[in-house]
Amino acid sequence: MDKFQQRHILGIEHLSASDIEFILDTAESLKSILDRPIKKVPTLRGRTVVMLFFEPSTRTKLSFDLAAKRLSADSVGITASASSIVKGETLIDTARNIEAMKPDVIVMRHPMSGAPHLMARHVDAAVINAGDGTNEHPSQALLDMMTIRERKGRIKGLQVAIIGDIAHSRVAKSDIRALVKMGARVRVAGPATMMPRCVETLGAEPYLHIEEAIRDADVVMTLRIQRERQGRGLFPSEREYAARFGINSKNFSLARDDALIMHPGPINRGIELTNELADSDRSVILDQVTNGVAVRMALFSLLLPELRPET
Amino acid sequence: MDKFQQRHILGIEHLSASDIEFILDTAESLKSILDRPIKKVPTLRGRTVVMLFFEPSTRTKLSFDLAAKRLSADSVGITASASSIVKGETLIDTARNIEAMKPDVIVMRHPMSGAPHLMARHVDAAVINAGDGTNEHPSQALLDMMTIRERKGRIKGLQVAIIGDIAHSRVAKSDIRALVKMGARVRVAGPATMMPRCVETLGAEPYLHIEEAIRDADVVMTLRIQRERQGRGLFPSEREYAARFGINSKNFSLARDDALIMHPGPINRGIELTNELADSDRSVILDQVTNGVAVRMALFSLLLPELRPET
Amino acid sequence: MDKFQQRHILGIEHLSASDIEFILDTAESLKSILDRPIKKVPTLRGRTVVMLFFEPSTRTKLSFDLAAKRLSADSVGITASASSIVKGETLIDTARNIEAMKPDVIVMRHPMSGAPHLMARHVDAAVINAGDGTNEHPSQALLDMMTIRERKGRIKGLQVAIIGDIAHSRVAKSDIRALVKMGARVRVAGPATMMPRCVETLGAEPYLHIEEAIRDADVVMTLRIQRERQGRGLFPSEREYAARFGINSKNFSLARDDALIMHPGPINRGIELTNELADSDRSVILDQVTNGVAVRMALFSLLLPELRPET
Repeated sequence: MDKFQQRHILGIEHLSASDIEFILDTAESLKSILDRPIKKVPTLRGRTVVMLFFEPSTRTKLSFDLAAKRLSADSVGITASASSIVKGETLIDTARNIEAMKPDVIVMRHPMSGAPHLMARHVDAAVINAGDGTNEHPSQALLDMMTIRERKGRIKGLQVAIIGDIAHSRVAKSDIRALVKMGARVRVAGPATMMPRCVETLGAEPYLHIEEAIRDADVVMTLRIQRERQGRGLFPSEREYAARFGINSKNFSLARDDALIMHPGPINRGIELTNELADSDRSVILDQVTNGVAVRMALFSLLLPELRPET
Repeated sequence: MDKFQQRHILGIEHLSASDIEFILDTAESLKSILDRPIKKVPTLRGRTVVMLFFEPSTRTKLSFDLAAKRLSADSVGITASASSIVKGETLIDTARNIEAMKPDVIVMRHPMSGAPHLMARHVDAAVINAGDGTNEHPSQALLDMMTIRERKGRIKGLQVAIIGDIAHSRVAKSDIRALVKMGARVRVAGPATMMPRCVETLGAEPYLHIEEAIRDADVVMTLRIQRERQGRGLFPSEREYAARFGINSKNFSLARDDALIMHPGPINRGIELTNELADSDRSVILDQVTNGVAVRMALFSLLLPELRPET
Repeated sequence: MDKFQQRHILGIEHLSASDIEFILDTAESLKSILDRPIKKVPTLRGRTVVMLFFEPSTRTKLSFDLAAKRLSADSVGITASASSIVKGETLIDTARNIEAMKPDVIVMRHPMSGAPHLMARHVDAAVINAGDGTNEHPSQALLDMMTIRERKGRIKGLQVAIIGDIAHSRVAKSDIRALVKMGARVRVAGPATMMPRCVETLGAEPYLHIEEAIRDADVVMTLRIQRERQGRGLFPSEREYAARFGINSKNFSLARDDALIMHPGPINRGIELTNELADSDRSVILDQVTNGVAVRMALFSLLLPELRPET
C-alpha cells in the first residue's frame, strides 16, 4: 500500500503514471469479485461514503453506489441542485458541515470546475471528483485506461483518436491526460467551435477532419454530444454533426484492423456512432461500464488503506 | 426449489396456478419474519437489487426496498422520468448498461406496457415487473391472492367482484388473470368508458351495474380512480362516480355476509369507498400492504434460488 | 434503561429535564464511536428506520441517515411533497400504510404543525419529529443542549440569548423549552413582526434590541432567516436585518468573555452572523453538527431499548 500516496482523486492531472498503473492493478484484482455469485467483500465495513451530487447523474452515481456496497461500505446520497441543497450556503460551509458528520469518503459532482478541489481543502475525508464542470472526470478516464489495457495488453505506444466536443468534455480532458501520461499518442478531432485552446498543452494533436485523427488508430473514443450543457449555435444540426463527426463503418475502416470503439455513454445512436458499430465486436462500451464499478472499488480501497474491519 | 422454474416475474400471464401457489406458500413462511423484533434474515446477503422506476412510486418502491433489506440484499434505486434517466438512450441500451454493472435482480416500473419484457430479453439479471403501463402489476395480484387465501382459506370457487376503471388498471388485469387461474369466478363493473374489450377474453364477466357484480360476492375489490393517468371525459365528476360506482354499506350488503373489501391503495375516501367500509372489520386493505412485503420477499428468494451466502 | 419511558420524540414539550439529561448522557457515550476508524456498532442490526420527509431537507436527513447506519439499522427514505407522496391520501391512511410494513422507527418532517403527533397516534412504531411546521424540532434542541453542556459543563443557571425570527422558528421553540427545563434563563430578540405572543408563556423574556438580550449572555444562538417560509413584508431588507439583528463583533462583545456562538445552519453569512464570528473560536456551529449525529443515535437507541441482536 505504500505505493499509493494520494489522499484524494481530484483529477488525472495530479496522478503519476505509476499511480494510474497501481489503480488499474487494484481494479483488475477487485474485478473478479463481480463474477462471483456473492459480489461482496467486507473490506470497507463500517466506512461511510457520502455521495454529493450537484448535477443530475444516474449511471455514475449508480456505479459509485454499487462499488461502495460491494465493499460493504455504507453509502448515503445527496442529490440536489446547487441552489436547493445549500439554501445560499457557501461551498466551504457545506464542506465543513459534511465533514462534521465524519464521512470517510466524499464523492462529489459539481457544475463548477474546481469545486471538489475546494472541498478537499476543507475536509479530512478523502474526496473523489465524479465530474467537475468542464474540467475532469478522473474515474471515467481510469475505467477507460483499464478497458484499453485489458483489451490491448498495454497503453504505451498506442494511437488513440478522440472525436467530438472536446471543449465541453471533462471526459476528454481526463482521458487525454491519462493517455499522455501512460505513453499513448492522442489525436483529437471535432467541430472547430468545440476544440479548446488547451488541447495541445494537454499533449494531444488537433485535427479538423476526423479521418486524419482516426487513420491507423488503435482506439477510437467518441464523445457524447452534451445537448444539455452547450449553448446554441455550436453546430448546425444533429444530422450535420452525424455526417461530419459521426463514426461509421466507412471512416472507422481507416483505423487499424483490431481497433477498439469506446464511448462514455449514454450513446446518441446514429449521431456520434452508427448502430452497427455500437453493437459490433469492436465496441467495448459495456466493458467500460463493468470496469467502472471495479475502478471505483479500487479508488475506495486505496484511499482507505489503513482499514481494519472490526464488526 | 425445483418446483419454481421462472427466471423473471413479468406478469401473471406467464405463471401457472402451481407457480402462484408456490409463491404464496413461500410468502406465508417468510411473513413470520415480519413479526419478529429483528425482521431480517441473511438469505440474500451480498445480492444486489436495482430498483428502476420510470414512474413515480412511493409505496410499491418502499415495499420492494424493505423486502430486499429484510433479506439482507443491497438495494440501489434509480427514480427518474423516462426522459431524464436516459438522456435519449434507448431502453435496450439502458438495460445493457445496468446489466454490465451485474445486478442480481432488476425491479422495474415503466409507463410503457411491455417495457420489463424488453428489459428481460437483454439482461442476465432476474426482472420483476413492478407495473408496466396498463398491462400488469403481478406482485400486487400476488399479494391480493395471498390476502384472500389467508382470510378465506382458499381461492378456488370464490366469487370476486372488481369495481372501477378496469381499462386503465394494470392491477385489475393482473388480478383477473390470477383469480381465473386459481379457479375463482370474476365479475367486473365500472363505467362503460372504462371497460376494456379484453375483459371477457381474460375470463371475467362484465356488468353495467355494480349491484349485479357485487351480489353474493366473497370478495369486493375496488380500484383507485387514476386521475393522473386517464384523459378527461371518461366520467362526469368524482361525485357522480361515487354515486354510481362507489362501494357503500347499501350496495356492499348485497355481497355475502363474510365478504372482504380490498383496495390497492391509496384510497380516495368517499369516492371509491366510504369511510365506514374502509375502516370496517371487513376491510383487509392493511393486510394487503403487509402481505406485499412478504410476497416481494418470496419473489426475491425464488428468483435467486442457488444462493449460498458466503460473507 | 428503565430511566427512559418515552415511546416517541414528538417535542421537547413532552420531555422532562431528567429525560433530556438521560438522552444527553447516552449521546455522549455514543459520540466516541464517531472518533473510531470504524464508526459502526451492531446495536440496531435488523431494525428499520423509515424517513418520511414531506419538506425538502438535506442536512437533517443526512444526519438521521448516518445515525441509523452507524447503529447498523436499515434506513429507507421517502422524500416528496405532501401532494405527490399521498396522491390525495389522508395522513392517517399514510400512517397506517407505513405501519403495515412494520418499521421500527419513523422519522418525520412535515410542513403542518402537529403532523408527527397525529402519525404517532396511529402507529406502533416509534415516531421522531424531525421538524413540524413552526412547532418543534426536538432533535435540534437536544443537540444544542449537548453542545452547551459539553462546552460549559452545565446548562443550569446559564444566560442564553436567542436572536432572530422566533415566530417562524421551530428550532427556537424547541430550544426555549429545553433551556427553560434545564434551568437556563432565556432572552429572545428579533424583529417585532417575528416575535410570537407565546414567547413569555414558553418562559423566555422578549427584548426589542438585541444588545439587551446579548448582554452578559453565556451563549448567543442566532437563527436562520427562513426566506423560503415567511411571507413578504416582515422586514425591509436583508441589509437592514443584518444591521439591526445580525451578530457582529461589536454587539457580541456585550456577552460574557467566554460566550459561545451557535447557529442551526445553514448560515447566511453576513446576515445573521459576520464571517469573522462564524469562523472564530467562540463558534461551536460545527460541534452542533457532529453532536447531531450522536443525539440521533441516542434517540434511536433509547426508543428501541429491548433490542437483542440476533443476526
